[in-house]
Amino acid sequence: MSSPQVVRTRDDLRSVIRERVAPLIERGDASLGLVPTMGALHGGHGELVQAARAANDLVVASVFVNPLQFDDPVDFARYPRDLDADLAILEAGGVDVVFAPATEEMYPGGTPMVTVSAGEMGRRLEGASRPGHFDGVVTVVAKLFQLSTPPYPCRFNAYFGQKDAQQLAIIRRLAHDLDFGVEINPVPIVRTPEGLAMSSRNQLLTERAATAALALSRALGVLRERAAAGKPLNIPEVEAMIREDDLVELDYLKIVDPRTLRPIHLSGSTPGPALALIAARVDGIRLIDNMDLPGPT
Amino acid sequence: MSSPQVVRTRDDLRSVIRERVAPLIERGDASLGLVPTMGALHGGHGELVQAARAANDLVVASVFVNPLQFDDPVDFARYPRDLDADLAILEAGGVDVVFAPATEEMYPGGTPMVTVSAGEMGRRLEGASRPGHFDGVVTVVAKLFQLSTPPYPCRFNAYFGQKDAQQLAIIRRLAHDLDFGVEINPVPIVRTPEGLAMSSRNQLLTERAATAALALSRALGVLRERAAAGKPLNIPEVEAMIREDDLVELDYLKIVDPRTLRPIHLSGSTPGPALALIAARVDGIRLIDNMDLPGPT
Repeated sequence: MSSPQVVRTRDDLRSVIRERVAPLIERGDASLGLVPTMGALHGGHGELVQAARAANDLVVASVFVNPLQFDDPVDFARYPRDLDADLAILEAGGVDVVFAPATEEMYPGGTPMVTVSAGEMGRRLEGASRPGHFDGVVTVVAKLFQLSTPPYPCRFNAYFGQKDAQQLAIIRRLAHDLDFGVEINPVPIVRTPEGLAMSSRNQLLTERAATAALALSRALGVLRERAAAGKPLNIPEVEAMIREDDLVELDYLKIVDPRTLRPIHLSGSTPGPALALIAARVDGIRLIDNMDLPGPT
Repeated sequence: MSSPQVVRTRDDLRSVIRERVAPLIERGDASLGLVPTMGALHGGHGELVQAARAANDLVVASVFVNPLQFDDPVDFARYPRDLDADLAILEAGGVDVVFAPATEEMYPGGTPMVTVSAGEMGRRLEGASRPGHFDGVVTVVAKLFQLSTPPYPCRFNAYFGQKDAQQLAIIRRLAHDLDFGVEINPVPIVRTPEGLAMSSRNQLLTERAATAALALSRALGVLRERAAAGKPLNIPEVEAMIREDDLVELDYLKIVDPRTLRPIHLSGSTPGPALALIAARVDGIRLIDNMDLPGPT
């Protein structure tokens, strides 16, 4: 296993991609896979890297804590940064190139004046309590797409976790609405055997809270079964189920159109293909989870 | 002179650019020049085409009336559309490829949900009376840049007129802030021998109004001379000069930083490099004009 090549500047990233893709092109069909991260990597990121590695000739990962997506500068300052630990994980995953720019390199001259806007999709769900967060996400992702697009006829894939379902939905629209020549590849949520969705926050949960947190995935599983069977979802009952444990404080449970994040108005029984999202505080730790609901079969 | 190749879809545009740039690359250094337009072409557009033709191997022009940049749907519906006339002008200018998509081709599924935002630069000057206009401009220009970026290591130039100075400033920031690999080339304002900036609206002016409209470029000329000589600009005096003729109703005269469009606060005498912009109604016809002000030499 060889160490990934670490590049720090946008110019170097473009040069390295150009140099490494050129010989692949001569061979015929070529592909580049991009895994954008903010570092602090864990098993969930490992899945993203694995998916990218399995399907692409060249794998590029970025490690950049993006100030634009933090509404609170204290959170931004406190966000964990340990590039050596991240590099070890990326090396183990077989990443070829790691782009780890400084803030001033990504935003020369300070905060950008022209930005990407996530629009109404960015104001719903998680965006309701984090104004500007998804605008910051799509702005940095648009930049990373631009910087990583191979300057050759070469397939260009990017990998995002389904855990952040709202982010994934918005980035799909970014690629679609602004004509980025990138294919967005969703990577399934990694769960413990009991069903808890993997998150760096899980380590903050006590054993008791970790058990209580299973209510989230259990509720989503119930919704999924009902949808697949063509039965009414009975949301209030599912909400009551989640709230049964005193440690769990439900923030929202929503059924939305995965393409627009607009609420689906349930008329009678089940909707068509839909996305169910939950956010809750469990013993004070905020967790999110989601599941696709199939249309009745 | 051969007719330009007209393409109607985004896929065809990408294919045609790919096919036409590939053989240029084998020859060595190659360049593509893009001229985005809304059609209704006149002499000013001719200058853009000429600049692109003189400096690039392949010249692509787009003709697309962009609904996103109209605040009034009636204006959008009324905007002149005559592709045959436009094609004749583009052919005479030696354009190779014309991209003329339908609205549904540029915005499949309707209005985009993820868009580009011009931010505060889009709310100043012309943007103050046209909310959302510059957001619509940068969104369509971002899409045109994406669609026209050659999939090869190839210089990529785009051409915009200095007449629309605010648009030019915002598009420069678009390319800079979102890492588009395109060079923005400004094309100087075309003026009548008397100094009137070329505009499709000039044909609406009576002879008497056309003479009155010369006050705009005259005022800018005075500002430029004063700036070059290191003398105080004396804005109120220049405003009075513009208003001397009863036909001229001044909307604004502003001195701004050309990189941010923020007002320059004149302390005592002249500013450094700056941009002076004027908007006025002349006999009821709204005209804009602008000039770069040099720093004192």
